[in-house]
Amino acid sequence: MQDTTPRFGFRLIGEDGAARVGEIATPHGLVRTPAFMPVGTGATVKALYPEQVKATGADIVLANTYHLMLRPGAERIAKLGGLHPFMRWDGPILTDSGGFQVMSLAKIREVSEEGVRFQSHLDGSRHMLTPERAVEIQCLLGADIQMQLDECIELPAERAQVERAMALSLRWAERARDAFASLGKPGQALFGIVQGGTDPELRRRSAEALVAMAFPGYAVGGLAVGEGHEVMLRTLEGVVPLLPGEKPRYLMGVGTPQDLIESVKRGIDMFDCVLPTRNGRHGIAFTWAGRLNLRNACHADDPAPLDPTSGCPAARDYSRAYLHHLVKSGEYLGAMLLSWANTAFYQELMAAMRLAMAEGRFASWAEETKRRLAASEED
Amino acid sequence: MQDTTPRFGFRLIGEDGAARVGEIATPHGLVRTPAFMPVGTGATVKALYPEQVKATGADIVLANTYHLMLRPGAERIAKLGGLHPFMRWDGPILTDSGGFQVMSLAKIREVSEEGVRFQSHLDGSRHMLTPERAVEIQCLLGADIQMQLDECIELPAERAQVERAMALSLRWAERARDAFASLGKPGQALFGIVQGGTDPELRRRSAEALVAMAFPGYAVGGLAVGEGHEVMLRTLEGVVPLLPGEKPRYLMGVGTPQDLIESVKRGIDMFDCVLPTRNGRHGIAFTWAGRLNLRNACHADDPAPLDPTSGCPAARDYSRAYLHHLVKSGEYLGAMLLSWANTAFYQELMAAMRLAMAEGRFASWAEETKRRLAASEED
Repeated sequence: MQDTTPRFGFRLIGEDGAARVGEIATPHGLVRTPAFMPVGTGATVKALYPEQVKATGADIVLANTYHLMLRPGAERIAKLGGLHPFMRWDGPILTDSGGFQVMSLAKIREVSEEGVRFQSHLDGSRHMLTPERAVEIQCLLGADIQMQLDECIELPAERAQVERAMALSLRWAERARDAFASLGKPGQALFGIVQGGTDPELRRRSAEALVAMAFPGYAVGGLAVGEGHEVMLRTLEGVVPLLPGEKPRYLMGVGTPQDLIESVKRGIDMFDCVLPTRNGRHGIAFTWAGRLNLRNACHADDPAPLDPTSGCPAARDYSRAYLHHLVKSGEYLGAMLLSWANTAFYQELMAAMRLAMAEGRFASWAEETKRRLAASEED
Repeated sequence: MQDTTPRFGFRLIGEDGAARVGEIATPHGLVRTPAFMPVGTGATVKALYPEQVKATGADIVLANTYHLMLRPGAERIAKLGGLHPFMRWDGPILTDSGGFQVMSLAKIREVSEEGVRFQSHLDGSRHMLTPERAVEIQCLLGADIQMQLDECIELPAERAQVERAMALSLRWAERARDAFASLGKPGQALFGIVQGGTDPELRRRSAEALVAMAFPGYAVGGLAVGEGHEVMLRTLEGVVPLLPGEKPRYLMGVGTPQDLIESVKRGIDMFDCVLPTRNGRHGIAFTWAGRLNLRNACHADDPAPLDPTSGCPAARDYSRAYLHHLVKSGEYLGAMLLSWANTAFYQELMAAMRLAMAEGRFASWAEETKRRLAASEED
């Protein structure tokens, strides 16, 4: 008899230099890697229907623990059957731990050994997020891939401060792992998060300690917070070789198409970022010919679509003149179409990377693609 | 050889009391009447893709001359091939004349015999709208059904003031008709608009004069501007019998489901209103069980959809709990789903009316439906 218990797993399909193609198995299906996860902060990828997100080729979406614990509440979502039916997404879902948003959004924050106490940015209500509660919330949501609570500090910061936060995040990682051992369902996975700012030694200590805890996957946190593209890549070059090759690697909150290409080249398997949808709401389109600002007057009379060869109706069927008009008029449809086109472009980009690797030509593909993407308009 | 020149036409299919089922032929296809036209003010039915509008069963949409002449401009739309390809709607389009929006939106307005001079509410630019220019703009847009420029005054007003505006609108009707005779394309139609406020005598004079001008269709304007449901219906009861039975009758800017039922009962064939989409953006859902306010806390834990029997995915597949969450969070998807569900409900309502008439049971259907719809929540 076959054992049908869901199991989390990562299968390496191929490598091309440090870059790799793979597949993550979750209770809600497979994720082709390298994967870009559209961000569904409040249980919705902004301005898109879930069917559209799926049709762009996205295998997995991300949702934010901080937002959902405050509204509508994790217990409420659990009573309604979990996040999957609630947001009508039947594929895999990854949730963050809430740590990053507590830092960037909450009003008052007090970090202690126990966890972080904060006030909601919505109504001022007081909450305590501990490593255990962060796991509990993510289990109530039913997330396939969960994140340990970590302390995200603002950069630049003193080394001692970065070290203290990194060490605390390691102790929280252990507590999260223990909580998940009793709360997690078969096939769900909890990832550890490497911290340590831009300090190679702190990053190394963080990575080694997390690897010793044997998480099923590893995230690199605390990057893309203003340190710059080059520093981010150098940090990745230090961290990635310390992570086990048979586990997926997730670079949190990144990034531009160029960031994604360079990070995949350095061995990253998973990404999430608000750029495609946020930029879509602000009139920016990502295309294979670079970034376009649909607010610019040069588009006002242009009957051409964003990309006649795209498989996405938003990019293929609507004129730039119409998109310009919609964006200038603040119409919903402008945000809807550009968020859709951008989400589709990001998936096309990931699919192109997977194909280039499968054909062993990732390096040359990357150079050519970066040249094409460089022709971007001013925002 | 068959003559394939498009012809505008109205075919009466059946009558049930004063109510009637029919079909309007336009250069872009047929319109089943009674018809509700979703409003696409700025060349988009707000928060809906054109394919969705079509799939709800809408045969025709309305667009606003005032908005489009200011942004993106009628000449620009003409250069791009007209409004149909611009907004990706290949069915019939009706445009208003701009008169109503000049009154309600423009900053400074000076009405003269020649026309109305006004300042744009967008950028303060100065414009002149004459009966001839209103026709020219609508022809540049390529509207299948066009409206004469009329003077819309604010109510309540002195009888002399209402009479002056009505008489001016009649002179403008003649000028519009003459302009359309040279500018209109085969199959396009220009409607006259009956004015005269709530004064039966003024309405009669307006209707008779317009009928003498032999327009291919007639609108009733200047209603649903605060006079109340009963006064509106009494005015219709006076006006409709004066209009020729073989021409379509269009009640402008109306209304609630109850308004539509009562107006169809009195012989109206066409409607437009922002209610389904505007209310959708404000968290209100129209259903066969009455109006729901999704902001209300009673929906927070309700796994039921708006209407499990609806053919519209927005009404059928998403829980009230999720809709409540989206609306409370100000998410795009909330407005998208409720605008979609409401637009579909209005089309279901029109289809139900057409069916009830075809089966000769409109009166009893109307009574039962009004009872069902009365169970509405507080906004």
